[in-house]
Amino acid sequence: MRVKLIGITVALAVAGTAWAATVRDEPIQPLQPAKVTNPGKVELGKKLFFDPRLSRSGFISCNSCHNLSMGGSDNLKTSIGHNWQEGPINSPTVLNSSLAVAQFWDGRAATLKEQAGGPIANPGEMAFTHDLAIDVLQSIPGYVAEFKSVFGSSRIDIDKVTSAIAAFEETLVTPNSAFDKWLQGDDKALNARELAGYKLFKESGCVACHNGPAVGGTSFQKMGVVEPYKTTSTAEGRSAVTGKDEDRFNFKVPTLRNVELTYPYFHDGAAQTLEEAVEIMGRLQLGRTYSKQEIGDIVAFLKTLTGDQPSFIMPLLPPSSNDTPPPQPFAK
Amino acid sequence: MRVKLIGITVALAVAGTAWAATVRDEPIQPLQPAKVTNPGKVELGKKLFFDPRLSRSGFISCNSCHNLSMGGSDNLKTSIGHNWQEGPINSPTVLNSSLAVAQFWDGRAATLKEQAGGPIANPGEMAFTHDLAIDVLQSIPGYVAEFKSVFGSSRIDIDKVTSAIAAFEETLVTPNSAFDKWLQGDDKALNARELAGYKLFKESGCVACHNGPAVGGTSFQKMGVVEPYKTTSTAEGRSAVTGKDEDRFNFKVPTLRNVELTYPYFHDGAAQTLEEAVEIMGRLQLGRTYSKQEIGDIVAFLKTLTGDQPSFIMPLLPPSSNDTPPPQPFAK
Repeated sequence: MRVKLIGITVALAVAGTAWAATVRDEPIQPLQPAKVTNPGKVELGKKLFFDPRLSRSGFISCNSCHNLSMGGSDNLKTSIGHNWQEGPINSPTVLNSSLAVAQFWDGRAATLKEQAGGPIANPGEMAFTHDLAIDVLQSIPGYVAEFKSVFGSSRIDIDKVTSAIAAFEETLVTPNSAFDKWLQGDDKALNARELAGYKLFKESGCVACHNGPAVGGTSFQKMGVVEPYKTTSTAEGRSAVTGKDEDRFNFKVPTLRNVELTYPYFHDGAAQTLEEAVEIMGRLQLGRTYSKQEIGDIVAFLKTLTGDQPSFIMPLLPPSSNDTPPPQPFAK
Repeated sequence: MRVKLIGITVALAVAGTAWAATVRDEPIQPLQPAKVTNPGKVELGKKLFFDPRLSRSGFISCNSCHNLSMGGSDNLKTSIGHNWQEGPINSPTVLNSSLAVAQFWDGRAATLKEQAGGPIANPGEMAFTHDLAIDVLQSIPGYVAEFKSVFGSSRIDIDKVTSAIAAFEETLVTPNSAFDKWLQGDDKALNARELAGYKLFKESGCVACHNGPAVGGTSFQKMGVVEPYKTTSTAEGRSAVTGKDEDRFNFKVPTLRNVELTYPYFHDGAAQTLEEAVEIMGRLQLGRTYSKQEIGDIVAFLKTLTGDQPSFIMPLLPPSSNDTPPPQPFAK
């Protein structure tokens, strides 16, 4: 893993390597660094992303389940919500989520902005309401000043809150992976095994769904095409949104960017290792039984998708005032 | 609040102010910036401080209850532990904790290193065991390499873990508060009200306990000297450590550094505001009923004790391996 400071473009001088200006013609494209047009809004969004006062308990923030120290995920099978409720689904990484066709596993939010309001008001997650969250923020002088500076108004509303969080999340891209360097013409960026893994990944059909800059996130697909997927999870997938029976068990194809950091895998978090995930995907989606060697090759390739992780100064949150409603972690 | 980068001394040029080289002779002394002698150990300790894999659930880290975005505390009356257990006591700030005579409200740990092992193995907090935490860390190649680099050995043990966490915590000092600038001779650092508040704080006897560089933390004192303190908390205080009846309800005097950030107050977190805390302390400890004006003066002084908050790049945690025992958030 390498780090970059958000908003700072780092010029990499790679000794002995002449990078081609052109990009290889592959079903996966390199990630581009985020362009920050409104740094004040991103900073505000970062604070909100880390602020547990957006939850009823004062304990759970966006970062609790999309932990930016851990690949933008919580590395749990399913997440922990208010009052230690067991979540119904695996927390998807927030990294590169701006590239997805829609948000949540079932795509029920069209945009990051729309997504950001969901967990705040979900009784099983942050268990707050938008109105109560706004009451809290409006009572905090440091936030009032910052919203005024960013939005030109001291009146905080959920639209501004989710818009700022989305602006921060849009910066959470992870360029400069070894695979991107190879895509950009650096032949030495991948070793023979990684290249063999990519070749197999491409030729055996994984790229049919895992394609584009995010290596996924562009479509909804059925989990269990050739063989049915067996799970104790009650998540229905896309049909919960469309109401159509044929969408049952259709889930958004997850991004494979940084996949070595976002274990465990699948919507139910049932696959603990990448080897297990590759074996199951090959069998269930492609009807193919990969050998141990082949699985190792693909996993070696997948690990080349880990890019520069977002790197930033841990935000300092403006303190509550005497008028701030206290959190209610234990109230029934 | 101002920020500083750990390990970087910032030379402040204050226009129009001639700082005296000497320090005022007061019962409170200025905080000194942390001297980092082993930056690698501090970096390792920072990762461990933020790593929820030190808990049984994989969800709770040191930073959960000593949140460095929020004054090194959780701003809850009492903390949330494994399985959403309600903690018995208010989480004290980790900021400047290296200056305390002992750790925990009852002083049951002599050092930061000793303290750091406590919550990991406390069934009501992180609910793990030292052995299981070491198994997890030892299975993570990134940690093994970093322990080897810092300690010269790949064998991880709880002694090394807590020693690294303590090294990081020792950097969490908050110098350069307005009050420290005044102590160092800058007459303009405090306004008239803040100065009046300090005078009252000193002359009415608060400094008998709240003294030294941390403005507290140097002794154990009875909560409720003149009048008894009424609480539903079952915390016994120092007597739980010494076994002596006369130590009942003796608690470590909390530091007042950054007190505007570390609400709510007292060992039971019962005072939500600084005004409430000052009123109660005056009445119960000193037998003095402060006027509203006097309380406001003291609170104005207390807010001058907010110093430079620790500022650092959010750590990236090394990923688990296939051999890492998965977290058990919901196992009974």
